[in-house]
Amino acid sequence: MITLTTDFGLKGPYVGEMKGAILAINPEVEVIDITHSITRHSIIEGSFVMEQAVKYFPADTIHVGVIDPGVGTRRRAIIIEGHQFLVVPDNGIATLPLKWIDAKSAYEIDLQKMEAIIGRKISSTFHGRDVFGPAGALLSLGYEPSRFGKEIDLEKVIKLELEPKKEEDSWILSVIYIDDFGNVILNLENYEKPKYVEVLGRRIPYIETYGKVNIGEFLALPGSHDYLEIAINQGSAADVLGLKVGDEVEVKLIYEEG
Amino acid sequence: MITLTTDFGLKGPYVGEMKGAILAINPEVEVIDITHSITRHSIIEGSFVMEQAVKYFPADTIHVGVIDPGVGTRRRAIIIEGHQFLVVPDNGIATLPLKWIDAKSAYEIDLQKMEAIIGRKISSTFHGRDVFGPAGALLSLGYEPSRFGKEIDLEKVIKLELEPKKEEDSWILSVIYIDDFGNVILNLENYEKPKYVEVLGRRIPYIETYGKVNIGEFLALPGSHDYLEIAINQGSAADVLGLKVGDEVEVKLIYEEG
Amino acid sequence: MITLTTDFGLKGPYVGEMKGAILAINPEVEVIDITHSITRHSIIEGSFVMEQAVKYFPADTIHVGVIDPGVGTRRRAIIIEGHQFLVVPDNGIATLPLKWIDAKSAYEIDLQKMEAIIGRKISSTFHGRDVFGPAGALLSLGYEPSRFGKEIDLEKVIKLELEPKKEEDSWILSVIYIDDFGNVILNLENYEKPKYVEVLGRRIPYIETYGKVNIGEFLALPGSHDYLEIAINQGSAADVLGLKVGDEVEVKLIYEEG
Repeated sequence: MITLTTDFGLKGPYVGEMKGAILAINPEVEVIDITHSITRHSIIEGSFVMEQAVKYFPADTIHVGVIDPGVGTRRRAIIIEGHQFLVVPDNGIATLPLKWIDAKSAYEIDLQKMEAIIGRKISSTFHGRDVFGPAGALLSLGYEPSRFGKEIDLEKVIKLELEPKKEEDSWILSVIYIDDFGNVILNLENYEKPKYVEVLGRRIPYIETYGKVNIGEFLALPGSHDYLEIAINQGSAADVLGLKVGDEVEVKLIYEEG
Repeated sequence: MITLTTDFGLKGPYVGEMKGAILAINPEVEVIDITHSITRHSIIEGSFVMEQAVKYFPADTIHVGVIDPGVGTRRRAIIIEGHQFLVVPDNGIATLPLKWIDAKSAYEIDLQKMEAIIGRKISSTFHGRDVFGPAGALLSLGYEPSRFGKEIDLEKVIKLELEPKKEEDSWILSVIYIDDFGNVILNLENYEKPKYVEVLGRRIPYIETYGKVNIGEFLALPGSHDYLEIAINQGSAADVLGLKVGDEVEVKLIYEEG
Repeated sequence: MITLTTDFGLKGPYVGEMKGAILAINPEVEVIDITHSITRHSIIEGSFVMEQAVKYFPADTIHVGVIDPGVGTRRRAIIIEGHQFLVVPDNGIATLPLKWIDAKSAYEIDLQKMEAIIGRKISSTFHGRDVFGPAGALLSLGYEPSRFGKEIDLEKVIKLELEPKKEEDSWILSVIYIDDFGNVILNLENYEKPKYVEVLGRRIPYIETYGKVNIGEFLALPGSHDYLEIAINQGSAADVLGLKVGDEVEVKLIYEEG
């Protein structure tokens, strides 16, 4: 089973070409669309969406993720092997899904080997079709990752700085996703639930359900993905706070009433 | 075979998570996207789109529909068994597909049983991933619907008021769908074809093909779904008539010339 | 394996109905979405997107393409058999994919035969669900194309005028696709790479990578599909040049420096 997460959009020929390149190699594999609507070139958003998929898919799933602003440059194409596989550009997109797959090794995809395997020239602009998709298809046929190129140090796989940073009495957090409603997802999980959250001068009640605050009011909540989320009931917290994916923001968790 | 009809949108992680939760339970099942672009929280639109799918899918298909504004409240999650299955919140979305599946029984999904089956906590905001998707996957493995919870009275399954209402010489009809072109679909089927349709003071010719009226002119027609449809050739009938999904409108079918 | 390329959009019931009609006939077939977001009624765009899919899918794939402004008129529904199959309206959409399938025969789909086969009336507005989808499903079960209707002359299948036209020292080219970024794809392949391209009074450097010109500047390049492409680095060439799909434009390829 191969999942696809890309920023190709749904209008053009790109998704079809990539699916064709995969199914030409393994016509039996099930190809699952996660999304093709990642904000163009947003590696953080792609990493977040891939993470959420990885958490729920079964062992051995092959996740192909192509948010690839560096295509045509010397950025590496890599395969990471754990109990699931990631087939991605080495640009940080692996950061969040890596937390869940118990990675044991990583390999660089050698483009010349890949050309020999697929029997055609690799374009300089569309590695989803010519590198990542075919590599995923070959893995689904049982190819060993080591056949694609040399093993690389897992520690050297590029990671985005998405660890929450603890300050004396606050956190410096990153916006890792903003959903269609303007809810802001921050990179903090496994925290003790506070009574309030303070962000950009606002004290926001930590309440688990939207319906418990008035329309237009802020709330903080765990969200279905367990990350800290800032929302406005029937409004856009991102717009009101002026936040976008990748922004850092200071957040205090407040445990006392008042 | 499991179909998915939701209002999750195509951008975020939600579709991927739900597919992962399904395929983790049954990696062999075919998951078919109907749409993830139902207007947010529009139960009527979801019901109409599910109905059209149900009409054409084969026996034993499992239709998972998640338009679920009441998630986290006490609304029930249910399974309806006929020659196809519906796995939906009990909020009225079953109304239109129910007409086609020859329903013989319905069951409430017991969330505690469900947690025991899937082996993790059910989130309060995302039952597509934690309840409806997994229930569909288990049905596809042959689970009896009775294993999910107690049988409920089919008559007590919530129905939207979508029966056309006959007045003395007119009908009170509901708008059940407006397509991308602004064509208005009304809840009247199996009517004798009129010469004209009168709606909001306009006498509109009942003509079966768009091309037979001038650009900008109204026509009424049966539509590919057999419901009465009001359209403007290359225009938006919904905009001109000021109608939206859920509105009621008085309609006269006129059988005489003139 | 059946691919779907349509202009139905992703919101409505149409995609689900067509998939249902296919899977009711062959529940085992894999149905692959290429796109349902072709610009409404744009036969050229549909032809281009189908071509790109055809180039990468394996032998025996059945490509169903429904961009069908003439549905309900006397335009023919056809099957073209090569090492892959095209199941399309005979309106020119076959033009570009035909270049790749080594076509050996074509058949008209007889609607009355089709009604007999599917056992229901064919709607006058939705042949994707009632004709093209079911025909694709039957082909995937091994039906001979000749069972759908009479053989027709491959030469008589309607072709769009999409051959590049050679003038004395220039080409008259057609815009066959404009991508989401406004890059303009022209119907010229297999040309010798020039130093410059002249179009609408502009001399544009032919450079293979976006990053090699300044932001806002024009470049010409081969694109991942091998057609000549005119782009602006981080801008919309289509907007600046005032071009849309179907437009013809005079283009000079210049091989000297200066």
